[in-house]
Amino acid sequence: MIREAVIVGAGLGSRIKDVIDQRPKGFIELDGQYIVEMSIKKLIAHGVERIIIGTGHQSQWYEDLKNKYPLIETVYNKDYATTGSMGTLEVCAPLVTGDIFLLESDLLYDSIALFVLQNDHHKNIILGSGKTNSGDEVYLAVDSKFELSGISKNIEEVGKPYAELVGISKISQKTLKVMCDFAESKREEIPKMEYETALMAAQNLGENLFVRKIEYLAWREIDDANHLQLAKEKVLPIILENESLREVRREVLLNPGPATTTNSVKYAQLVADVCPREEEFGLLMKNISDELTDMVGSKEEFATVLFAGSGTLADEVMISSCVPQNGKLLVIDNGSYGKRMAQIASVYNIDHDVFSSSTYEALDITLLEKQLKEGSYTHLAAVYHETTTGLMNPIPKIGKICHELGIVTIIDAVSAFAAIDIDMKRDCIDFMASTSNKNILGMAGVCFVFANKKELEKLKDEPMRNYYMNLYDQYQNFNKTLQTRFTPPVQVLYSLKQAIIETKLETIEGRYERYSKCWEILIEKVEKLQLKMLVDKNLQSRLITAILEPQNSSYSFEEFHDLARERSFTIYPGKLGNINTFRISNIGDIQPIEMQRFVDFMEEYFNSIK
Amino acid sequence: MIREAVIVGAGLGSRIKDVIDQRPKGFIELDGQYIVEMSIKKLIAHGVERIIIGTGHQSQWYEDLKNKYPLIETVYNKDYATTGSMGTLEVCAPLVTGDIFLLESDLLYDSIALFVLQNDHHKNIILGSGKTNSGDEVYLAVDSKFELSGISKNIEEVGKPYAELVGISKISQKTLKVMCDFAESKREEIPKMEYETALMAAQNLGENLFVRKIEYLAWREIDDANHLQLAKEKVLPIILENESLREVRREVLLNPGPATTTNSVKYAQLVADVCPREEEFGLLMKNISDELTDMVGSKEEFATVLFAGSGTLADEVMISSCVPQNGKLLVIDNGSYGKRMAQIASVYNIDHDVFSSSTYEALDITLLEKQLKEGSYTHLAAVYHETTTGLMNPIPKIGKICHELGIVTIIDAVSAFAAIDIDMKRDCIDFMASTSNKNILGMAGVCFVFANKKELEKLKDEPMRNYYMNLYDQYQNFNKTLQTRFTPPVQVLYSLKQAIIETKLETIEGRYERYSKCWEILIEKVEKLQLKMLVDKNLQSRLITAILEPQNSSYSFEEFHDLARERSFTIYPGKLGNINTFRISNIGDIQPIEMQRFVDFMEEYFNSIK
Repeated sequence: MIREAVIVGAGLGSRIKDVIDQRPKGFIELDGQYIVEMSIKKLIAHGVERIIIGTGHQSQWYEDLKNKYPLIETVYNKDYATTGSMGTLEVCAPLVTGDIFLLESDLLYDSIALFVLQNDHHKNIILGSGKTNSGDEVYLAVDSKFELSGISKNIEEVGKPYAELVGISKISQKTLKVMCDFAESKREEIPKMEYETALMAAQNLGENLFVRKIEYLAWREIDDANHLQLAKEKVLPIILENESLREVRREVLLNPGPATTTNSVKYAQLVADVCPREEEFGLLMKNISDELTDMVGSKEEFATVLFAGSGTLADEVMISSCVPQNGKLLVIDNGSYGKRMAQIASVYNIDHDVFSSSTYEALDITLLEKQLKEGSYTHLAAVYHETTTGLMNPIPKIGKICHELGIVTIIDAVSAFAAIDIDMKRDCIDFMASTSNKNILGMAGVCFVFANKKELEKLKDEPMRNYYMNLYDQYQNFNKTLQTRFTPPVQVLYSLKQAIIETKLETIEGRYERYSKCWEILIEKVEKLQLKMLVDKNLQSRLITAILEPQNSSYSFEEFHDLARERSFTIYPGKLGNINTFRISNIGDIQPIEMQRFVDFMEEYFNSIK
Repeated sequence: MIREAVIVGAGLGSRIKDVIDQRPKGFIELDGQYIVEMSIKKLIAHGVERIIIGTGHQSQWYEDLKNKYPLIETVYNKDYATTGSMGTLEVCAPLVTGDIFLLESDLLYDSIALFVLQNDHHKNIILGSGKTNSGDEVYLAVDSKFELSGISKNIEEVGKPYAELVGISKISQKTLKVMCDFAESKREEIPKMEYETALMAAQNLGENLFVRKIEYLAWREIDDANHLQLAKEKVLPIILENESLREVRREVLLNPGPATTTNSVKYAQLVADVCPREEEFGLLMKNISDELTDMVGSKEEFATVLFAGSGTLADEVMISSCVPQNGKLLVIDNGSYGKRMAQIASVYNIDHDVFSSSTYEALDITLLEKQLKEGSYTHLAAVYHETTTGLMNPIPKIGKICHELGIVTIIDAVSAFAAIDIDMKRDCIDFMASTSNKNILGMAGVCFVFANKKELEKLKDEPMRNYYMNLYDQYQNFNKTLQTRFTPPVQVLYSLKQAIIETKLETIEGRYERYSKCWEILIEKVEKLQLKMLVDKNLQSRLITAILEPQNSSYSFEEFHDLARERSFTIYPGKLGNINTFRISNIGDIQPIEMQRFVDFMEEYFNSIK
């Protein structure tokens, strides 16, 4: 897959500068958006994680855009006025680390183009279209193998044109080098070289540049006022419709995970079949592991181990793998997930005690510390954020106490990771579990254990308590072979990669901020409706809120749920002993405006049963 | 999701009968295919598993088509000459068991239409398009909520038309009933009623029929010779291109699973987010379990239990759950997977012996029987088909011996199920494991254990050896709640459902026949090239072939592999002790023509290193 893009955006745009007021052509606005920003969003949605923009004329516009999209890197072509697009591509090339999409900055296009290029097995592809009659065509001719044989604005020069150049190409790193070397060698001869010339030269120098024609592609390059009008009136409506048709229906999941995902994470599952033992897939898993580790610690000290399975599987991996034969475990039980970890310890006859605490009140740290000091424990297991209630445990505090006592910490962060700022070293966490379908916002099917490598190595000679879920075995086997021991869920991992790209773009802090906004909207309405919450506001995670069902015989969770579903919201029941609650989670790709729509509906419902 | 379709195909097609020689309009040929068959393929690819066709004029054509697509059911409208399309819909209605797609038979359309209708949350949708200028428009008018307010060929009658009727609708079972009741009540008044009239009536009777307009949809109804020409020259090329652009690149995986999947199985992952604890998802899992059970036995005696994880997880589920505390297990080890089951038994300290046998020769049944008789075993574990070598074990024979001795059988059928004809009762199998990504041709991430319910119930009070992988707990919890205990991989399950639809269509016998053809093509070439196979032809599964690497210093697996990859084929290494092999598997959605292409390449490669 292509993960890098280069956009050449240095040009003067002389034919349109009166219309767009001197700004770079990429900043032409259509549908309330800059066209280059539309393009950037499409690139990201198709798996691109680094965008290198060659700037020149009015470069400040791109610098400003970089603030919004940290995955953009800009390179200034100081000679932009005297070099062509190839000169700009040349200044970008040194930053390129793999195969790229190469795009012009002033393009409007149906994103299917990127899907097609990602999917095509050719390494070098020049995208062509059918006739546009735009008056500004660059014609492409091909040989019998559909490789480039001519490229020119002059139809006579190419002979029989096969397609028109769109301005989106897929170029291998090697071919890019050939293009740059060619440009270098012709510096004197052709000081103002367009990249089209270098493409043709690369083909002639033995690179194979395949022309992929999409006869009916909706696209437009915008070079002048006429183009702009055409784009607005004829091309954009088709693009917007085409792209909307391919979107998956939006359902807002207010259940505590699996969470609402973006359309692009869903589409990332649509990949060519691949044997997971191929190196490219091993590298994908390695990259995913490393990126996940990066979110919680340094790769020198920590590692992420992937498994196929749910969050509970990751919990069982930790409990069954991380407590040695002669270890003693204390499990904090203040909710379903803490209770489950204790149950798992029981199943394996692991020597353990349970520290029970209220499911909705703060746990007594002093009492916990006392027990830890007196109990000769080697390990502690706790849940960071109890999905059942929305109660947050003060893990950094607990971790610190444990580490001071030499106790290894095992933390279920299933619904905390990628929402809460976690630094495993700072927070004294040795082993930590989460899954692909909670706050990282991928699809269900993959879970992972983050591990302090030093503690992990200590498990090397421990006898296995089970086979599939053994942490050390999975870790060392992957390190040795770049393969998981057993078939991983291939497509879930591709979508997890996309989810990671999008998480990095939003940042975990940004995500928590968005979540908090949604939570505040919810809480405000809950208070207005005089509903009671199970957990005190200050102890809440701001991720999941358990709300007591009203003492009103007209209230029916089923009715409330079904009415919400009709409006594309999914809510969740929650029974804690004899306390009935319903739960509203605000994790996932949920926008404040959607939460507002939900709470307005909620108000309507509760008023209707008054 | 819509899983049923009704096609009204009874009409006389009077305006086109000279051109198409009296056949029903659905059998107009375009691009070498009947247009109704194109439509049927698109419906299947979008999750439809039952197609009810109302026939009349020249109904034999549809009867013949039914032989090719067993999911078609035909209903003959004997009064087709005197009733309209509503009369035909009425005869189909009693067969309908859910919400439906309702289609005209003479339609050519971009399949995106079905994707859009599956995705839209409205229960009743009439699909409309922008202007076609076809001269045969049925105009749709809408109210402010985009619900149907008028439908007519007479533009004056509808006032301001909003869209043109395409002839594809999504209709709820309830609304269909309202339409049929209306038709019934107007039998005398309107003997020849078109379904459009009933749609309008249903809207007026309080059903909400939403009009979904796709402005630029490529489609054509073919009523006359002009339409046919237009379809051929203008519409079909656009449809073919649009659909091909959305296809995922085809890679032919010749590794022993995950296997090559169809485009439609890949697309089945693209569903709206859903909480897996919603009833609709529980019903999907129930349906998947039941359909899987149907493939190997009766639902009265057998059940399928789903887990998130790989095939090895399913093996571990069986070994750790099915051998009771006081049981004694014999494991047949004649390959990696048998060895693995023994290893799993060791990890749990399960009392067991290993019956070792050659990895490439037939096992000695007499010797096995002797050991079984002498060893006081309660359970036997064996692999049906050894993925490492392609060796088939004679499981039905072994099963029979075991059952005569009262020994419970545990069979890893990971790479046998859905390729080999298995009847658990006949073949004396009590527990059997497989996964979503082998011969059932779904995505990786789900595994399942088929269980003899009587034997399963006996495990009720056995202490758990682990938590996540406990078979009985998973089984009884699902039966009680329609939920798996832990988050299932939602999208993998949707694609598994699609894979099941496609498996039923091909049938397991048909699949094995196709596999055999591919295998024969392979074997012929292997013999021609004088390569040696690890396992004698007669003992081979015809699913996976282990071929000895040639004693030729020019041979390099890496080179062979990489050259194959360039041609979109993935091959697989295989090391068995000190024997080096490469493995060619022919499981998956692989066509004989593709295998031919591969073996031609293989010949080329082996000739090149001579």
